[in-house]
Amino acid sequence: MRTEGRLTNQLRPVKIMLNTNKYAEGSVWIEMGDTKVLCTATVEDRVPPFMKGQGKGWINAEYSMLPRATQTRNQRESARGKLTGRTMEIQRLIGRALRSIVDLQALGERTITIDCDVIQADGGTRTTSITGAFVAMALAIHKLSQNVQFARYPIRDYLASVSVGVIQEKVLLDLNYEEDSKAKVDMNVVMTGSGKFVEVQGTGEDAPFSRNELNALLEYAEAGIQSLIVHQKETLGEIGKRIGAV
Amino acid sequence: MRTEGRLTNQLRPVKIMLNTNKYAEGSVWIEMGDTKVLCTATVEDRVPPFMKGQGKGWINAEYSMLPRATQTRNQRESARGKLTGRTMEIQRLIGRALRSIVDLQALGERTITIDCDVIQADGGTRTTSITGAFVAMALAIHKLSQNVQFARYPIRDYLASVSVGVIQEKVLLDLNYEEDSKAKVDMNVVMTGSGKFVEVQGTGEDAPFSRNELNALLEYAEAGIQSLIVHQKETLGEIGKRIGAV
Amino acid sequence: MRTEGRLTNQLRPVKIMLNTNKYAEGSVWIEMGDTKVLCTATVEDRVPPFMKGQGKGWINAEYSMLPRATQTRNQRESARGKLTGRTMEIQRLIGRALRSIVDLQALGERTITIDCDVIQADGGTRTTSITGAFVAMALAIHKLSQNVQFARYPIRDYLASVSVGVIQEKVLLDLNYEEDSKAKVDMNVVMTGSGKFVEVQGTGEDAPFSRNELNALLEYAEAGIQSLIVHQKETLGEIGKRIGAV
Amino acid sequence: MRTEGRLTNQLRPVKIMLNTNKYAEGSVWIEMGDTKVLCTATVEDRVPPFMKGQGKGWINAEYSMLPRATQTRNQRESARGKLTGRTMEIQRLIGRALRSIVDLQALGERTITIDCDVIQADGGTRTTSITGAFVAMALAIHKLSQNVQFARYPIRDYLASVSVGVIQEKVLLDLNYEEDSKAKVDMNVVMTGSGKFVEVQGTGEDAPFSRNELNALLEYAEAGIQSLIVHQKETLGEIGKRIGAV
Amino acid sequence: MRTEGRLTNQLRPVKIMLNTNKYAEGSVWIEMGDTKVLCTATVEDRVPPFMKGQGKGWINAEYSMLPRATQTRNQRESARGKLTGRTMEIQRLIGRALRSIVDLQALGERTITIDCDVIQADGGTRTTSITGAFVAMALAIHKLSQNVQFARYPIRDYLASVSVGVIQEKVLLDLNYEEDSKAKVDMNVVMTGSGKFVEVQGTGEDAPFSRNELNALLEYAEAGIQSLIVHQKETLGEIGKRIGAV
Amino acid sequence: MRTEGRLTNQLRPVKIMLNTNKYAEGSVWIEMGDTKVLCTATVEDRVPPFMKGQGKGWINAEYSMLPRATQTRNQRESARGKLTGRTMEIQRLIGRALRSIVDLQALGERTITIDCDVIQADGGTRTTSITGAFVAMALAIHKLSQNVQFARYPIRDYLASVSVGVIQEKVLLDLNYEEDSKAKVDMNVVMTGSGKFVEVQGTGEDAPFSRNELNALLEYAEAGIQSLIVHQKETLGEIGKRIGAV
Repeated sequence: MRTEGRLTNQLRPVKIMLNTNKYAEGSVWIEMGDTKVLCTATVEDRVPPFMKGQGKGWINAEYSMLPRATQTRNQRESARGKLTGRTMEIQRLIGRALRSIVDLQALGERTITIDCDVIQADGGTRTTSITGAFVAMALAIHKLSQNVQFARYPIRDYLASVSVGVIQEKVLLDLNYEEDSKAKVDMNVVMTGSGKFVEVQGTGEDAPFSRNELNALLEYAEAGIQSLIVHQKETLGEIGKRIGAV
Repeated sequence: MRTEGRLTNQLRPVKIMLNTNKYAEGSVWIEMGDTKVLCTATVEDRVPPFMKGQGKGWINAEYSMLPRATQTRNQRESARGKLTGRTMEIQRLIGRALRSIVDLQALGERTITIDCDVIQADGGTRTTSITGAFVAMALAIHKLSQNVQFARYPIRDYLASVSVGVIQEKVLLDLNYEEDSKAKVDMNVVMTGSGKFVEVQGTGEDAPFSRNELNALLEYAEAGIQSLIVHQKETLGEIGKRIGAV
Repeated sequence: MRTEGRLTNQLRPVKIMLNTNKYAEGSVWIEMGDTKVLCTATVEDRVPPFMKGQGKGWINAEYSMLPRATQTRNQRESARGKLTGRTMEIQRLIGRALRSIVDLQALGERTITIDCDVIQADGGTRTTSITGAFVAMALAIHKLSQNVQFARYPIRDYLASVSVGVIQEKVLLDLNYEEDSKAKVDMNVVMTGSGKFVEVQGTGEDAPFSRNELNALLEYAEAGIQSLIVHQKETLGEIGKRIGAV
Repeated sequence: MRTEGRLTNQLRPVKIMLNTNKYAEGSVWIEMGDTKVLCTATVEDRVPPFMKGQGKGWINAEYSMLPRATQTRNQRESARGKLTGRTMEIQRLIGRALRSIVDLQALGERTITIDCDVIQADGGTRTTSITGAFVAMALAIHKLSQNVQFARYPIRDYLASVSVGVIQEKVLLDLNYEEDSKAKVDMNVVMTGSGKFVEVQGTGEDAPFSRNELNALLEYAEAGIQSLIVHQKETLGEIGKRIGAV
Repeated sequence: MRTEGRLTNQLRPVKIMLNTNKYAEGSVWIEMGDTKVLCTATVEDRVPPFMKGQGKGWINAEYSMLPRATQTRNQRESARGKLTGRTMEIQRLIGRALRSIVDLQALGERTITIDCDVIQADGGTRTTSITGAFVAMALAIHKLSQNVQFARYPIRDYLASVSVGVIQEKVLLDLNYEEDSKAKVDMNVVMTGSGKFVEVQGTGEDAPFSRNELNALLEYAEAGIQSLIVHQKETLGEIGKRIGAV
Repeated sequence: MRTEGRLTNQLRPVKIMLNTNKYAEGSVWIEMGDTKVLCTATVEDRVPPFMKGQGKGWINAEYSMLPRATQTRNQRESARGKLTGRTMEIQRLIGRALRSIVDLQALGERTITIDCDVIQADGGTRTTSITGAFVAMALAIHKLSQNVQFARYPIRDYLASVSVGVIQEKVLLDLNYEEDSKAKVDMNVVMTGSGKFVEVQGTGEDAPFSRNELNALLEYAEAGIQSLIVHQKETLGEIGKRIGAV
């Protein structure tokens, strides 16, 4: 049995609060159960050196956990003097996922940096970050659209992410920390509003998995992500209207 | 005129919320106007190498700002690969200030690490961190006292901090960011509940200051700090009763 | 048309040479077309700190490319002073994949470190590294088995990996560098000799992909990996006989 | 009783030797008792990036101790790979203090870097560094004035610094290492020739201090600093004549 | 007796294979006995900042050992985050030696970077690197000469290097690892085709050496290097014809 | 003509002042013309990890230049975050040279660390450091011998070092900075009191050198070093009596 009687295919309670930071061009405080992430979007009128002169924009993400976001305190990466492999992997994933639904040409020579800072961690911090980062980016681009005349609206589709896993032969949606540490198979999926896959990352370090299990995991993930996208749409309301519009 | 008609000797609205993090032994979300800091206290049953074998405890602090806590985005210190001088200076100050009112002998061979993470910055982040860190530490030591029989209660006194400055010949209490950037003299003061000084740090980089100005600054700071300590006492209630008890 | 008339589901020529290094406990020089990787396995009679006292072993991997393995020269990570996110991601992947088919309990308190050094890169360096690393590890454990009486043979199954991708609506197996840079979807798959998935990592940064495409990619990967495992078995011969034996 | 019968308000013997380095634009070897610091001033015709295009100059300071400047050997910061918080704090202090009496507009787009290298440390290394750094800077600006026609002389006032402390209820001026390690309160004060405060940094880590103690400390510091400035004036002679001239 | 009956003044078997890397402008796989080094030469049409605007080129070298090139595994320098002193010393030596026979003026504003990666180490890795690096550089400059009209051919002379040492009063040429670790005196010599010295580095850490021993060491080295240069000439054939031509 | 009519085989004026630092177990301020180096010797009753349990001692050296020891200011290595290759090369050389005349067995499990800090640089800083470091070490071991009963005196011989070079076909002894920058061949030699070589490092980056030149260089160096050793003996007087005694 899951905590608070949650069903195998049920998400934890989701909260998405908009504009929680007074300086950022877009900001979101997102909670999935006890996992809490602050996502801020910063817009700058320049692109990184490797993108210069292409007339295209760039989306970049950074991810970090506060030292006591977790059950025991983690050393700060600033004190260690370098990022862990886990952090690098996650921030590369978030950036890649966001870029998949952005029309960089339409955005023009601008960089949007999304910072995902995990205030409290209870499983699914990378997937929650993606779901929140999308909304923070949407707010920033909407704000930008009030001053800039875009040829096409730069956001092509909605985007959200969720984790799924296998515990004792059962597929579960949206694992919390305790479940995650018991899961034999662990998968993170990112999908668009139109139901396509952007990232599928499944790992069976503790036990390789069959094609049937893979199929079941993908179905749970797909349903969970579509629920999250409904939530994003409701929260953004009017602001989200131009997303994916032709 | 100050924002919202604030008087020269008036604090910004103060909010101190207790136990906002589910894992930390003590946690506080503190706001002074638009400055917001999350302070968590972590208790560990060991001391750093240089303190070993002395039968005494240690209090340590770390300080960081989220990248978009400020008007423009700051590069993460983890990405730079090292802490800035400003961060080191602030975290040394917080640790030193807290140790001044802790009986390390009474605490025993334990380390309490206070993490001060600035969620949003609008001036006074180091003084707000100290005021909040004291409360987070008080919560952690209170919790510890429920399992450990202390010979003496390890907290000898209350502690809070505020900034003061001089703008156009006028002394002002609790500067926000805009005021801070105009101030010719800038001073941070840390005091105890019994009205003694723990730290006095005054800087006149833009204009050296006279002994009279110094006196006026100290008076404003003293009054502001005593207000903050009243606030701390009300917020802690019963939990604070043993602080400073003989 | 693919280079040298390769079919969409055809692997590049594979070469696996055993014991190419005179010092390492196991070593393999593997080539997939023009991609060349030297894999060495080092056995040490101790485990990393976080594994101590559990009676279990550990498998660790490191990955690096020589600076001129690629078309233009890359700066050495030793000169930069830190690993790139890409390198960290790859070496975490290789280690995780190998551990999935090793019985760490049976291995006992030993660490096997697999170094994968890319001598020349023409696409698929991470998947080629995994396929070669498995063989180097098998050689090292076989050698170890001549002096150590294992309760169970520590390798539970064969393991290999391949990349697949989508170019112009077509699914292709084992992409070389030129194909890889044109692919809209890119997927790396790691599977066991018994046909189970260990890692599935699909990315559609340039174009999200449908469930049908995902299915086709997995089928191509599965067939390619089974061919590689046949090759591994032939190369290892007698040495591989105890792998997966009950 | 203090070493060699020193009175509570008496400085240690002060020596300031000019031009001890053949390359630097200004250089000073300063001794306060057994504390010995070499200060060199380097003038460059450019400013750091953040100061560009403002028509103003910049003063920067660096501070370091030789590894055996102290009773036991300290690891070099170059070998550790990073500066300690203490070093950063001190060099920020020295730079800030010097800038307070320099007219950066009058200096023009030049940077003066003051290096303070502690050859031997016996307490008061940061205050001795400031007193010596001022003289080294004065030499460099005097030399510059022989080739450059300044609209106003860039040095507005003299500047010196001293430490004061409380040991067993007594206020002492200019603490040596042994006294410093016994002091309950420790204060560093920087003042100008015209008697204004530039920095006041008092710390009561071991015992908070009262307003009365603070007043007594400031009086001792003020008298000590004025003696040091007399010494600076005598040493500089004609070279110092234009300092603070209208 | 030396391994396989080698005489005191006999080189180990030498193999030099050309163009072993498909991307580099010049590449060489060189073996001296069991020491194996891959040398690649990269040509870039720019020079480092300190050489700009002089109309001259630059030759730079980097050196590294694969972690399991040696009997026990060495930690990667990329993982340590910095180069060892030994590596820096060796790559400075290789670069300096190559520059001694290159006409940088004739080369023009180009940088040639030679990467020497030790695949397997059995003594003499730095001298083998120099001998191989020369050939890789010669290939790259020859290739360049097919597109660029040089006023003078940029390579003035051949260059090779060998180690010599003293074991039990006997002088030995070209020490392998086992001999090297027993040698009381250890010397690396770099010479040109015309018999001049470019580098002489002799060390008697374990036992200072006499002038007579020094003379004997130099004679052995000279003969060994001339043999290596014969080998280089045969291997390069036509490609080497313009080297040193007036 | 050399500065101040110096002959080709004449040393610059040498000054060696003993015990110039009040804390170090041995200290020397050495000057060769305008090159000034402070050498301090620190004795510790432990050895580095790789020497543990062998009953032997260790000699280690560190070298650094103050930022304005040179004509233009150099960035501090502590600010760069890492040592340059030049510094590493020099400190390895100093340590190796000192160890060549120390009986590490006789010294017992102790480490002597010699810090060579260049206060002012005018050529020959590494050779001057070695000559001074030897004396600082001799002072420290003499002091140690007053408390420790050595089976054999741990210093086997005197040791000094000098540079030689070739300018316009002429061999010169003890080059200053200006000469050094014009020299085509540059050689550093370290020798013992009994006339044996410890290090010979000759470099002809700008022009390879013949065997005859090499011979002439060695003769000049030998004579110069023997003069320096006479100077060391006179300066040490009684303290040096046991050096090399049987």
